[in-house]
Amino acid sequence: MRVLLTGGAGYIGSHTALVLIERGHEVVVLDDFSNASPEAVRRVEELTGATIPVVTADLAERGAAHAALEGVAFDAVIHFAGLKAVGESVAQPTRYYRVNLDSTLTLLDLMAERGVDRFVFSSSATVYGDPELVPIAETHRTGVGITNPYGWTKFMIEQIVRDAQAARPELGAVLLRYFNPVGAHPSGRIGEDPTGTPNNLMPFIAQVAVGTRERLSVFGDRYPTPDGTGVRDYIHVMDLAEGHVAALERIAAGVASYNLGSGTGSSVLDVVRAFEAAAGRAVPYEVVPPRPGDVAEMVADPARANAELGWRTTRSLADACRDAWTWQSANPGGYAG
Amino acid sequence: MRVLLTGGAGYIGSHTALVLIERGHEVVVLDDFSNASPEAVRRVEELTGATIPVVTADLAERGAAHAALEGVAFDAVIHFAGLKAVGESVAQPTRYYRVNLDSTLTLLDLMAERGVDRFVFSSSATVYGDPELVPIAETHRTGVGITNPYGWTKFMIEQIVRDAQAARPELGAVLLRYFNPVGAHPSGRIGEDPTGTPNNLMPFIAQVAVGTRERLSVFGDRYPTPDGTGVRDYIHVMDLAEGHVAALERIAAGVASYNLGSGTGSSVLDVVRAFEAAAGRAVPYEVVPPRPGDVAEMVADPARANAELGWRTTRSLADACRDAWTWQSANPGGYAG
Repeated sequence: MRVLLTGGAGYIGSHTALVLIERGHEVVVLDDFSNASPEAVRRVEELTGATIPVVTADLAERGAAHAALEGVAFDAVIHFAGLKAVGESVAQPTRYYRVNLDSTLTLLDLMAERGVDRFVFSSSATVYGDPELVPIAETHRTGVGITNPYGWTKFMIEQIVRDAQAARPELGAVLLRYFNPVGAHPSGRIGEDPTGTPNNLMPFIAQVAVGTRERLSVFGDRYPTPDGTGVRDYIHVMDLAEGHVAALERIAAGVASYNLGSGTGSSVLDVVRAFEAAAGRAVPYEVVPPRPGDVAEMVADPARANAELGWRTTRSLADACRDAWTWQSANPGGYAG
Repeated sequence: MRVLLTGGAGYIGSHTALVLIERGHEVVVLDDFSNASPEAVRRVEELTGATIPVVTADLAERGAAHAALEGVAFDAVIHFAGLKAVGESVAQPTRYYRVNLDSTLTLLDLMAERGVDRFVFSSSATVYGDPELVPIAETHRTGVGITNPYGWTKFMIEQIVRDAQAARPELGAVLLRYFNPVGAHPSGRIGEDPTGTPNNLMPFIAQVAVGTRERLSVFGDRYPTPDGTGVRDYIHVMDLAEGHVAALERIAAGVASYNLGSGTGSSVLDVVRAFEAAAGRAVPYEVVPPRPGDVAEMVADPARANAELGWRTTRSLADACRDAWTWQSANPGGYAG
């Protein structure tokens, strides 16, 4: 297949590009590089030996995106592009809604015009809100207790995709609900390169370990969890990338949703200790008040993806810490140097 | 106040324009006239003696809408504009999402830029989905059991407005959840003028009574209701228009939601009989299978609007039938003749 990866220069996009190419697919990367580096694509080319066509366009600008994609053929779309900073989404809600929703609408319309009928969407476990039951299966209610515009855009896009599929029955759409992606390609050549203060735990820890930041802030230690800190399901980005390929290769008309998670919960302090072991360095931290909207525990039940996609995670939290550390220590300033 | 009415040439917009002017406010109408007639605005001018500035623009086209509104001042916005045909929304979901969501985002951004902080949104009882309890209070859950993209756009816009208000605390926003608007101004000069086959019951009945259509289709007569046909809360459009004025005059920083309904349920056959009595003509009907997604009963609990807005409905279903009939018989082809 020739697969258009929107946001293909980003963290998950670049790792998925690599795995797709290794599996024999062709990829085209579309990115506006507002929060990603062309260097990520160059390094995927270096790791794979492939040449990757790159289209620079903002999908939220419908006319410009159509023009940029003219003459660019593809059989499937994996839609990673979107704004993803939770805190920023609270401060700039209309921007988040416009960019994330309009990008998806542009793509769905373009696919209908061209008769492209395979669509994989980067959704998130955030659609489950504050979960009633952990581990969380795909049948868990969605749209209740979502606490920020970023999360609402994921919920809304899932609904938009369902309705678009109902109006166009030949469309095969897969909603992949990510838990907490971490780690990097074991080469250390590609990895997570957040702009500014990292929103996610592991890049923050990695920056503390490498000396870019002084200490980690642990948001709350009074949650009803074994050590009081929040529990999440960390999934190695290479496992996540393989999940995308498995979903794409089994896509069928209709809409399917899959949790991409390991099924194992780790606390913030578990991650700190695992990273310290991998890096051989101390990661100083301080406990600060919990963030509004954070929930105690989010852990996937990945049984559906295991059974239907023939996919499961094979990498541990220790593997993820090792690979994140390889990336961070070789690229202390990210792709910029 | 100088109030911008988006979709101000439409059914509810034109009646609200009239009531606002009668209460001493100024109005500016913005409409793209894709589903409304400039003649409606002309007739509001005729009924009130006011001159109404009209801006012709499609709010979903952000750049064009900004340009069209340059130099147009207003203190408040009532946002009626949007696509509203349930069946069409199922067939054209991406169009519905794009137009309804982008229009709202354009307006919210424009208001933030200009420091305009009063916003009233035309929401709908459809946000309650298939209700757990009737009559429905504003505290009823929303977003569960919505069956079409039109309804989802209303739910999503409510969330977008809440998030926009959280990011801009000085904003006062009111979400008005309409039940079933019917009737017309008693003069018969303005009224509901649907394009093509009416989606709503009363204009359909009126077209049967006036001879434009042969017979009414009643969708299902086996619902768990007194006569087996669906029960809805019909609200006279003049009562609804007064509800908008009451909400606008009491708007305060924050987000408030109000049901605009009468609190009384009427079945399809109740409406047929009331219309026959008002028109003095028979309305032949046939029972056809129920429409997927239709619920048995939707009736408002209007207590919050009664208490907080000092507003209540004063017109009966018989009044609405009489006024709809006056409008329909004087304008059998709507504004076109």
